[in-house]
Amino acid sequence: MSKIWESNFSNKAKNVRPSPIREILSVIRQPGMISFAGGMPAPEVFPVKEFHKGVDALLNDGPNLLQYGTTEGYPPLKEFLSGWTAPRMGRKVSLDEMLLTTGSQQGLDLMGWAMIDPGDYIITEDPSYLAAITAFHNHGSRFISIPVDARGMVVEIIPEAIEKARAEGKNIKFIYTIVNFQNPAGSTMTLERRKKLVEISHKYNIPILEDDPYGYVRYDGEHLPSIFSLDPDGGVIYAGTFSKILAPGTRIGWCSGNKDIIRKLTVFKQATDLCSSPITQALVYEYCKMGYLDSHLPNIIANYREKRDAMDASFRKHLPLDEVSWVKPEGGFFFWLDMPNIDAKTLFDKAIEKKVAFVIGAPFFANGGGEHNARMNFTFSSPEVIDEGVKRLGEAMREMLK
Amino acid sequence: MSKIWESNFSNKAKNVRPSPIREILSVIRQPGMISFAGGMPAPEVFPVKEFHKGVDALLNDGPNLLQYGTTEGYPPLKEFLSGWTAPRMGRKVSLDEMLLTTGSQQGLDLMGWAMIDPGDYIITEDPSYLAAITAFHNHGSRFISIPVDARGMVVEIIPEAIEKARAEGKNIKFIYTIVNFQNPAGSTMTLERRKKLVEISHKYNIPILEDDPYGYVRYDGEHLPSIFSLDPDGGVIYAGTFSKILAPGTRIGWCSGNKDIIRKLTVFKQATDLCSSPITQALVYEYCKMGYLDSHLPNIIANYREKRDAMDASFRKHLPLDEVSWVKPEGGFFFWLDMPNIDAKTLFDKAIEKKVAFVIGAPFFANGGGEHNARMNFTFSSPEVIDEGVKRLGEAMREMLK
Repeated sequence: MSKIWESNFSNKAKNVRPSPIREILSVIRQPGMISFAGGMPAPEVFPVKEFHKGVDALLNDGPNLLQYGTTEGYPPLKEFLSGWTAPRMGRKVSLDEMLLTTGSQQGLDLMGWAMIDPGDYIITEDPSYLAAITAFHNHGSRFISIPVDARGMVVEIIPEAIEKARAEGKNIKFIYTIVNFQNPAGSTMTLERRKKLVEISHKYNIPILEDDPYGYVRYDGEHLPSIFSLDPDGGVIYAGTFSKILAPGTRIGWCSGNKDIIRKLTVFKQATDLCSSPITQALVYEYCKMGYLDSHLPNIIANYREKRDAMDASFRKHLPLDEVSWVKPEGGFFFWLDMPNIDAKTLFDKAIEKKVAFVIGAPFFANGGGEHNARMNFTFSSPEVIDEGVKRLGEAMREMLK
Repeated sequence: MSKIWESNFSNKAKNVRPSPIREILSVIRQPGMISFAGGMPAPEVFPVKEFHKGVDALLNDGPNLLQYGTTEGYPPLKEFLSGWTAPRMGRKVSLDEMLLTTGSQQGLDLMGWAMIDPGDYIITEDPSYLAAITAFHNHGSRFISIPVDARGMVVEIIPEAIEKARAEGKNIKFIYTIVNFQNPAGSTMTLERRKKLVEISHKYNIPILEDDPYGYVRYDGEHLPSIFSLDPDGGVIYAGTFSKILAPGTRIGWCSGNKDIIRKLTVFKQATDLCSSPITQALVYEYCKMGYLDSHLPNIIANYREKRDAMDASFRKHLPLDEVSWVKPEGGFFFWLDMPNIDAKTLFDKAIEKKVAFVIGAPFFANGGGEHNARMNFTFSSPEVIDEGVKRLGEAMREMLK
């Protein structure tokens, strides 16, 4: 084989990190494997029939939906979202304060384009969403990582971290936080910390990217105000997605924020994919217009609440409780296991032998760590499968601890 | 307004070029305006009903299509494309030699990720597709531009250009060519030059990106072998799209090439949008499976051939023929006007007064030029509207030449 490609790759290509989840796909697909690795919604809660009711839009407005759309996004869907998100945003954002994206993942990449020069720093939670770390890393970012506890990101230590970094000449471009039911740690940032974070943003002139893919999937307790709603000065951009409240296959997410940053993201989006599909944007809009977003969400929540409770119960039943701890999340998709005496990588290999998969902690840490953590998804499998999988995991742990 | 965003923008964001077509949108949308500016297919040739027939796939395979898809793309559509493109590719490419993308625009961005470090050079045609120039520019590319004549890119001068550039320490990463009915110049690369280009690629170890959005939309003459098919060593990556042979709203394109480069593009795609929508991929597949791609293409070609001939006739009727020249393209979407004594920018302002729009030549040139060129799209408007628009343009030209 010719080396013509390899010898011409960019440095980015030489250093790019493939997703660890992707890398274990062939392992996960083995027959009989129970996987808690992916972050996938349960197929049984997809509102297939309701979503399909919108397809006549393709006949009625075919020439428009089959044409190129605007880069900014399908206006009727933006109008809908502006109203639907208003309670969380504190107000209706205007259409030029919103960009529709090809999944909220694209919003992360576009933030890289707009904000990050190679060598710049992003303040991230430790641990954090691994595909966000990768997206920012691809743009040349480095990371100042702030721990997460049961009340979310430990924002109290951010000022000192900023001052130390700036004294070292580091250029910090934004603060990235997954506010609700954090991926992977599961915790939610308290209102007090949200307010404190906005103060820090103002004081140090560092904007905030508030990523909220799971925010509407809450099983207990009350919704908290978004960080966006707490900052009247427009220093927060909020990223949302239909992946968890409707279906990932739509590949439709959104960013809401100050016009200046939305405009920059839009210009970069044009060079990356011109526009998201007007077809899926219209299908999502039709679904929303018929009221299904609100009427179906309780089904999703009920399904996942039962599974969360099932996994929690299975943990208590099957895991060595003096060796493993976790916080029961109020929403979202994941449990995060803390196992101080268990090496996650060794446990993974042993678990795979027993036909159960999870994601080891390390890839969620931008600057190292996570050797004794495991992320466990509870939304995809049935309570029965969850119990069997956790039982296998417990056996693997006990064998290791012998 | 807080300056929190602007003061934290990346250098890329400070230097990003918004599309000139986007910038004139508000002008184009004025009532009564005839626009030859965009590169849009005609809405009347969209196979709305045929495309809609595929929507039951959403009911039949709903849980699968609403879930996350693989980054590599929807396997049935890849299987179909592998067969359908075989005559042009010289063989059936295997599934791991193909990546489905969110429009072929995403393929360009991914090539930037995989190949370009800031300061690297790309060999481009002069003029070339402006959103390709922008995508590569955003990745920090500079350009070595090679003129286009009636036989396509003037490949004969590339060796000297490479040697000169290398002597100056420049790092050339790939050669970018739009082989058929080039955007904007309209010309098609001859078979002789295609072969010569592969020789150059081998000799200098520089791979080729063969962009072919218009290749299946040919009005006269015979299809030529792709450059991909002429290089058994795998140094050519081919980019195709459904935008012009079905509809842009699907946002589905593809890249075919050596496994190494496809794998790199795939890893970068994961960080930019995880996957393209399985919904639109499945809708496109259903349409293809029913045989409509082949049965409908002649309708598109007949519609556009008539419009191309109409614009050519209107040019001869209304333009000052001793001041304007053009080559009648054998396919594609555009005429390219050469107007040695007319400043395109001044003409544009005068034309807008007369309610007709086009794109000035300059943005298509990576290193300057094009001050006396205009790109005219003929696919979108009816022959009657084309005639009226060209008449207005001719009046604007005559007033300028007085």
